[in-house]
Amino acid sequence: MERRSDERIRITYELTLPEGERAEARARQIALEQTVELPDGCYPEGIEQRVVGRLEEIEELGGARWRLAISYDPVLVGSESPQLLNLLFGNVSMHPGTLVTDLQLPAAVVQRFPGPQHGIAGVRAACGGVERRPLLCTSAKPVGLSAEELAGICGALARGGIDVVKDDHGVTNQAPAPFRERVERCQAAVLEANATTGGSTLYFPNVTAPISELPERLAWAQAQGCRGVLVSPFLAGLDTVRWLAAESGMIVLTHPTFSGALLSERHGVAPDVLLGLVLRLLGADAVIYVNAGGRFPVTERACQAINARLRQPYHGLARALPVPGGGMDVKRAPHWIARYGVDLMFLIGSSLYAQGDVEAAARRLVEIVNAELHD
Amino acid sequence: MERRSDERIRITYELTLPEGERAEARARQIALEQTVELPDGCYPEGIEQRVVGRLEEIEELGGARWRLAISYDPVLVGSESPQLLNLLFGNVSMHPGTLVTDLQLPAAVVQRFPGPQHGIAGVRAACGGVERRPLLCTSAKPVGLSAEELAGICGALARGGIDVVKDDHGVTNQAPAPFRERVERCQAAVLEANATTGGSTLYFPNVTAPISELPERLAWAQAQGCRGVLVSPFLAGLDTVRWLAAESGMIVLTHPTFSGALLSERHGVAPDVLLGLVLRLLGADAVIYVNAGGRFPVTERACQAINARLRQPYHGLARALPVPGGGMDVKRAPHWIARYGVDLMFLIGSSLYAQGDVEAAARRLVEIVNAELHD
Repeated sequence: MERRSDERIRITYELTLPEGERAEARARQIALEQTVELPDGCYPEGIEQRVVGRLEEIEELGGARWRLAISYDPVLVGSESPQLLNLLFGNVSMHPGTLVTDLQLPAAVVQRFPGPQHGIAGVRAACGGVERRPLLCTSAKPVGLSAEELAGICGALARGGIDVVKDDHGVTNQAPAPFRERVERCQAAVLEANATTGGSTLYFPNVTAPISELPERLAWAQAQGCRGVLVSPFLAGLDTVRWLAAESGMIVLTHPTFSGALLSERHGVAPDVLLGLVLRLLGADAVIYVNAGGRFPVTERACQAINARLRQPYHGLARALPVPGGGMDVKRAPHWIARYGVDLMFLIGSSLYAQGDVEAAARRLVEIVNAELHD
Repeated sequence: MERRSDERIRITYELTLPEGERAEARARQIALEQTVELPDGCYPEGIEQRVVGRLEEIEELGGARWRLAISYDPVLVGSESPQLLNLLFGNVSMHPGTLVTDLQLPAAVVQRFPGPQHGIAGVRAACGGVERRPLLCTSAKPVGLSAEELAGICGALARGGIDVVKDDHGVTNQAPAPFRERVERCQAAVLEANATTGGSTLYFPNVTAPISELPERLAWAQAQGCRGVLVSPFLAGLDTVRWLAAESGMIVLTHPTFSGALLSERHGVAPDVLLGLVLRLLGADAVIYVNAGGRFPVTERACQAINARLRQPYHGLARALPVPGGGMDVKRAPHWIARYGVDLMFLIGSSLYAQGDVEAAARRLVEIVNAELHD
């Protein structure tokens, strides 16, 4: 039976075509490549209607660029995140000049994935009910320090009033600070700081790990009383996000390392689709992305698009926290609050460490953000 | 204690720099970004020597392009594949114009990963001891067919003499052909064909799955007597390859779907490093890549480089099979044997299906390849 078009998955592509290549031909090639992987007609009758992608729209953008939309039967994805990625940007990833700019999912597909289990409201509540300002996040670093030294930094950041202290994404289970010892010490340091200050700082250990280690890392973090975890889905597999959301009860914070190659301007998946929609759908409560104005070349427009994907209504999914980072200066916090609103979490690292005393630096950051709210 | 330079991990980058950016400054930025993630000097003494990347070489290539080599302490990677990826192309992936062209690993790091458990010799032996010709692989497809229909195709391909019949990478656990039923039927069809012909065709089911499903999929494939599996590491996470190699006893065949964005000419990881060295190190016995002359724009030189990485001696790792595919024509098999040698496996799909009767088409393919050997 034919599905209604709002029951189909719709993917929008912007293509940059080599001279002489016809957009209609490429559209048909994509519709086949992402489904039957066979040339036109080399498959049994009935397959065309059932699974081959259907060209819905095609439009010339000028400069050898075209926009087209192809819809697909959700049966291709089932309820499995690897197949969602495959449909989104599988074999077409090997055709240069293919940029996915939109993904529209029917409600029935969205319901097969967990989405954020805590969302913005849940993360705020876990941070002691901070409501009217952006949350603040910092990494304990650098890699190479001992577990005891990292715990000392966690304690200082917590005393300074940071809401979420996370492991640096490059800190996992290396010899200088093995996972178990580090998580135990860092969590204890944060709880001790909270007991002193009356604060509610959370410590999120980095559970990015080989798949066979992941359940044990999670169990250890849970046993220490951690409320959330950091994971790098582009290193460990995007399904780790879904798994953590579905099974852990933890707040899931994602790091974008290794995702950069997917985020090129003319080839890949648009950052708002990949880091916004897909990670939220899989269950990220908070998504770190590289902010404009930092040490990576990123536009504010791309960041605003990620924010929108994380926070806008989408088939009943909880809203997820944008976490802009990547060389953000403490002093620029007011600027970004004005641009992005308060429903976000700043990831500020280097500019605290550059001040030497991270506890004092954290306290100044909290003051800057609070002052902004009373202006 | 300072490590000798052959005990360090060495990564070579080719950078395309925006006007006005100094190569030395970028080199230093990479050395910091991939390790401490802090600006120069914002970390305790001793950390510089222990973990910050060390610039080993820098060379101007012309046209705003530079080649540089940075070495890193293996402590950063430990024995975990996600951290190897992070060091290889983590945060630097977010800096456009960064191409990793080489990765040199000390023996001590190589030994922490399984490498191919079967290798070329093992795959040949499992295929009934085929020694003097390239192996032949075909996918059962398309998605949308029932398990029974796919099993029919598997049987026909096996009777035609194909060495390895695999699931299409887009076929996983969808409603038309659920995993368990499909694997049971397809494996049975291949065994039945073998019993008739006296052949040794293998069936490799696609175990690409959410991480929580993976062990069950593998166990089912093992219970049916399958000797190998297909996995798409860029969908399911690269560590799935290591896990399968270390724990399954199966021959591991990898599919490159979703990897394309990493393989751009000026930004990403060179195909031979990513699909050759890294997948072999993690344990792939056979690596599908997109061949030149097919339906994707790829150079023969890049393919030869992948072949070399899979087959050349490397710290005692077993040799892995190159599996060129992606729109290869049956008639071109002799050409590619002449270019690539016989130690490979051809993945030929569309051009068999285009002939209608896949059994007869498979038989012709086997004849073409055998004839080539007697010329």
